[in-house]
Amino acid sequence: MGNFGRVPVGVVGASDYGGVQLVRLLMDHPEVELVYLGNESSIGKPFADLYPQLAHAVNQKIEAVDPEVIAQRCEAVFLCLPNGQACEIAPQLLEKGCKVLDLSADYRFSHLATYTAWYSKERKDRSTAALAVYGLPELYRDRLTEAQLVGCPGCYPTASLLALSPLLKQGLIVPETAIIDAKSGTSGSGRQAKINMLLAEADNSLAAYSVSRHHHTPEIEQICSDLAGHEVTIQFTPHLIPMVRGILATVYSTLRDPGLVRDDLITIYRAFYRNSPWVKICDPGIYPQTKWAYGSNLCYIGIEVDPRTGRAIVISVIDNLIKGQAGQAIQCLNIMMDWDETLGLPKLGFYP
Amino acid sequence: MGNFGRVPVGVVGASDYGGVQLVRLLMDHPEVELVYLGNESSIGKPFADLYPQLAHAVNQKIEAVDPEVIAQRCEAVFLCLPNGQACEIAPQLLEKGCKVLDLSADYRFSHLATYTAWYSKERKDRSTAALAVYGLPELYRDRLTEAQLVGCPGCYPTASLLALSPLLKQGLIVPETAIIDAKSGTSGSGRQAKINMLLAEADNSLAAYSVSRHHHTPEIEQICSDLAGHEVTIQFTPHLIPMVRGILATVYSTLRDPGLVRDDLITIYRAFYRNSPWVKICDPGIYPQTKWAYGSNLCYIGIEVDPRTGRAIVISVIDNLIKGQAGQAIQCLNIMMDWDETLGLPKLGFYP
Amino acid sequence: MGNFGRVPVGVVGASDYGGVQLVRLLMDHPEVELVYLGNESSIGKPFADLYPQLAHAVNQKIEAVDPEVIAQRCEAVFLCLPNGQACEIAPQLLEKGCKVLDLSADYRFSHLATYTAWYSKERKDRSTAALAVYGLPELYRDRLTEAQLVGCPGCYPTASLLALSPLLKQGLIVPETAIIDAKSGTSGSGRQAKINMLLAEADNSLAAYSVSRHHHTPEIEQICSDLAGHEVTIQFTPHLIPMVRGILATVYSTLRDPGLVRDDLITIYRAFYRNSPWVKICDPGIYPQTKWAYGSNLCYIGIEVDPRTGRAIVISVIDNLIKGQAGQAIQCLNIMMDWDETLGLPKLGFYP
Amino acid sequence: MGNFGRVPVGVVGASDYGGVQLVRLLMDHPEVELVYLGNESSIGKPFADLYPQLAHAVNQKIEAVDPEVIAQRCEAVFLCLPNGQACEIAPQLLEKGCKVLDLSADYRFSHLATYTAWYSKERKDRSTAALAVYGLPELYRDRLTEAQLVGCPGCYPTASLLALSPLLKQGLIVPETAIIDAKSGTSGSGRQAKINMLLAEADNSLAAYSVSRHHHTPEIEQICSDLAGHEVTIQFTPHLIPMVRGILATVYSTLRDPGLVRDDLITIYRAFYRNSPWVKICDPGIYPQTKWAYGSNLCYIGIEVDPRTGRAIVISVIDNLIKGQAGQAIQCLNIMMDWDETLGLPKLGFYP
Repeated sequence: MGNFGRVPVGVVGASDYGGVQLVRLLMDHPEVELVYLGNESSIGKPFADLYPQLAHAVNQKIEAVDPEVIAQRCEAVFLCLPNGQACEIAPQLLEKGCKVLDLSADYRFSHLATYTAWYSKERKDRSTAALAVYGLPELYRDRLTEAQLVGCPGCYPTASLLALSPLLKQGLIVPETAIIDAKSGTSGSGRQAKINMLLAEADNSLAAYSVSRHHHTPEIEQICSDLAGHEVTIQFTPHLIPMVRGILATVYSTLRDPGLVRDDLITIYRAFYRNSPWVKICDPGIYPQTKWAYGSNLCYIGIEVDPRTGRAIVISVIDNLIKGQAGQAIQCLNIMMDWDETLGLPKLGFYP
Repeated sequence: MGNFGRVPVGVVGASDYGGVQLVRLLMDHPEVELVYLGNESSIGKPFADLYPQLAHAVNQKIEAVDPEVIAQRCEAVFLCLPNGQACEIAPQLLEKGCKVLDLSADYRFSHLATYTAWYSKERKDRSTAALAVYGLPELYRDRLTEAQLVGCPGCYPTASLLALSPLLKQGLIVPETAIIDAKSGTSGSGRQAKINMLLAEADNSLAAYSVSRHHHTPEIEQICSDLAGHEVTIQFTPHLIPMVRGILATVYSTLRDPGLVRDDLITIYRAFYRNSPWVKICDPGIYPQTKWAYGSNLCYIGIEVDPRTGRAIVISVIDNLIKGQAGQAIQCLNIMMDWDETLGLPKLGFYP
Repeated sequence: MGNFGRVPVGVVGASDYGGVQLVRLLMDHPEVELVYLGNESSIGKPFADLYPQLAHAVNQKIEAVDPEVIAQRCEAVFLCLPNGQACEIAPQLLEKGCKVLDLSADYRFSHLATYTAWYSKERKDRSTAALAVYGLPELYRDRLTEAQLVGCPGCYPTASLLALSPLLKQGLIVPETAIIDAKSGTSGSGRQAKINMLLAEADNSLAAYSVSRHHHTPEIEQICSDLAGHEVTIQFTPHLIPMVRGILATVYSTLRDPGLVRDDLITIYRAFYRNSPWVKICDPGIYPQTKWAYGSNLCYIGIEVDPRTGRAIVISVIDNLIKGQAGQAIQCLNIMMDWDETLGLPKLGFYP
Repeated sequence: MGNFGRVPVGVVGASDYGGVQLVRLLMDHPEVELVYLGNESSIGKPFADLYPQLAHAVNQKIEAVDPEVIAQRCEAVFLCLPNGQACEIAPQLLEKGCKVLDLSADYRFSHLATYTAWYSKERKDRSTAALAVYGLPELYRDRLTEAQLVGCPGCYPTASLLALSPLLKQGLIVPETAIIDAKSGTSGSGRQAKINMLLAEADNSLAAYSVSRHHHTPEIEQICSDLAGHEVTIQFTPHLIPMVRGILATVYSTLRDPGLVRDDLITIYRAFYRNSPWVKICDPGIYPQTKWAYGSNLCYIGIEVDPRTGRAIVISVIDNLIKGQAGQAIQCLNIMMDWDETLGLPKLGFYP
């Protein structure tokens, strides 16, 4: 296959679920060529040692993470590193002209103090951080066009913000009444050996975790504040669901105007996402299930208004590893490169 | 085994999951003897035709549902019938001196108008309904002592009310801020062939349903109103989780006193449930998972206060078929018979 | 999007899992246009009523099944009908020049007597049946090039035959020692409401079924006999696994030459499937898991020889709805149309 | 509750799934008192730190593993230690008069050379090992009556041997034709953090492992050889199933007498297990599912004869952590103590 003219890209930290999704999706992308796979462990080993099922498709070896080499070979690079590591190499990559899409939390915050408070990590790259664009295309498409550095959103914030944004942006709700009850499959916790993520522990069970202190909270609040035009505090509770992939966010908030009905909101949401090919608003009375989005970059949103309580209940679903992670990063790249936003991304979910 | 002196009991509608749980639990109960299994279909067939794994343990046949016969043979009877059917036979059973524990919605409502509005069923047994006690022992233990007719709670209301009651009873929260985001395994929908409950559809997926109009809402509101001392409207949203058994309710509400902290609430909850052997309040920072309650009659409650939002977040878990259905009915019988409340019920969950 | 020059195709019986897979895959196929969706129920309704998640992508309505109309509009048609129904319309479709790919059992048997014996259905289309080619491209690629009518293999036979064929074809095993212990996800039983397929029944459980009399047995035997050059009887046992998709077949057989070792067999298999892009032979010591094939048209095969018993143990995995059903049918169409065999089919599994 | 007169017992290595099952079951056992919980890690910590859901029920602390102390306090002790560790302390425990039930592989083998060959561990306790009785009560009930040291069977051997024994003992099959295709839930691999046991990896997937070299093979062969009266080699293949608990073994073997039919075998099995309360032979045409045994000490066996191939196909199911581990150990203790074999063990599975 001739890749003449394709844009060379790389993935740093390709061993985890986000990384392997990127590899799989980038190999199907018609405009890029995956020329570099880096990881600080397993250097020199074939990538297929980690994922033997890809042995016939990926013959690359894992290379050391050297920003100089990466920038030389790649026009854009995806960083899938633990929090606090992307900010160690991003400045050098940018300096050498490489576009950077960071999938960690390092470049999601406009106020580094918030990052430091919630992630307990000091930072020395203030000027670089100031360049970062928050990679939620449905909200920041215009800024992404010019971006060199993208802080790709967390999985929960993606589902939560797509559900909340139209209400906040239009001033339809009382922001501090917003409660996000989020549910995620266990792949969100990555390919790390943890006892509580064993099938024997997590299957056929269900639990909340990090109640009132999950570190996706400030990320959600930052964007909500941006949309509302003032500081907003949000209630966010994540739950672990006995399934591999998918996030569902159930978002409650009190409407300012008690006369608004479901059909009004559906109209407002459809207008808001008119130019967003990856967001689908369900017909009245239809609530999405996570499986609809399974394997695709889609976000489905179902909307209800409870006239008895005056609340809007908005339900969004995504595939946490695609729209919630790898797919959204590629969507950002598409925009940065001025390609069609849907290029190379799976358009139909996988059912059943 | 000599059953001399045991109390003869029966189960009507034994074919569904609630019924088979009752059969299994009653067979292990030291003070009762299961003498009657009724169903309007499969009359004359061995019960083990429905559940072949019980062939060695249950040799009874399914009999017709004749109140006269039931009352003659049983001192107490459990009704596991579709909504609207228990009220057809309960009056006759009671008249003949048989204690009745109804697991449907028929006898849960003190105002039959509410029942009629949400269940779309007319009722002619007003005087009988007035005798019914709501079978949540942790709230109505005293009244159950004297009860002849018990309306056993729904599974969602059990988890929700055990989480909310101490806050409402003590007046600690603003009742109308209460939001119950509930999650249930699929056994809650019974042993009916439905496409959306197929493993191929429901596994590895997640969805909300009946948003803002689930018929457990008025049941929860009725008891909340009773506890609050005035009419209360509650937001209730159920979700379907890809697992067989278990309910987790995440309950949000705004505290009246912003100075209350988590440890205060834990103390209050422990005091409230001091005499309730089936409710366990978790230590600070511990949130229960549904699997802890799996196979037992236990309810675990975890408590958090978010000082940023001033909300209490209370998380309760139960086994929907035991504490949420069959086990709770037996707990009620124990109280009605003046036996130890824990008699014959599984005291330890099943793990992993 | 301009579909000028694309081959018009149709799907009859599009409501079940096989049908919806075909729809999804055909929409991504660069050389075909899906112009017809037929079903005898739901005529006139939008296809998206059955699968609301496809509302944005499929705007076609379900049409009546009229062979005349189908043949007029479609160059090729996929039949996803219950056994015994494809043979009612295939003759007319063929007569009018339409290529037919049947996913039922109707055209899998060269001896209709075998079909009648195992499926208890009389047949009147003997001459049509004689034209059918068995649609397992890895064995019958040449014949498919000329085929007008294809009997697409069952899901179990696909996994079983890909595992067994090299051994039988080369005469390396004693055919009657072959035992196929097969395991399948529940989507194999289709989108029918059946109690034993409920998540509450099938999840966290495991069972064999149709032991010694599953109707895929004669299909496997027919092809094995063809490969062995004489009548062969095979032991075949299917099991239901608590998962949605995937088949794994563990195939035992006694080697004629006790000197053969694992590496010999791996070499033989790789040579046998040299020109088969969808079959991947694992490296020594690697056994495939079904998830590797998930969402792709791939078949992975792992091979072991037990020197203690003289047996080969061959393990194959496929996605039962893709290589085991819809994907393989499209692979056959690709061959019939003289396109690349891999066209329009997902090349990489979906992980995790 | 007064435990006067109860037999004091202990559990060493109580932190893993086998251990917590033992704790749960022993707490419900009417004749024993659990007086000791030992582990080499977590000494001094409450057991409930490992399993918070048991905080209300188990208030014991984890103690160091000192054989002297254990023997002083316990009349019998269960050892749940990694292979190679039980044999370090069992001799001392026995010497001091303590009955020992070992759940590891250390005392399963009559020929230590076999153990050494498959487990790669040297042994110095030859004389102690010679005293051990293999703890499968259905085969060795008489010897267990007198036993001081029991080597409790592995989970796979339990399911496999209960399925095969009647055929071998009666000489009805050709032993070397026996093939055991076994399937297990992931709890069998214990509470260890392993990537391949993560829900994200193992759920919705299926794989074989340790093909032709699983270390339960020689254990099965040893007992089969004992039953057959000569050395027997068996084909054994384990598979990992996406579920928490349960084993199903599908056992194939060629009948010596081709005239035997299914009903003959059912009669033979029922006679063979006449005095075995935990083994249930299914009616003709009924095959057990693992969920039937879920949470109980039961083994269900379904039987088929395929007249086309002359093979018996026997299917057994157990709960791998109860009859396959903790429950069977307690069953052995019951026999050693001359109690009813069913004492304190769950008699009915848990459904759904």
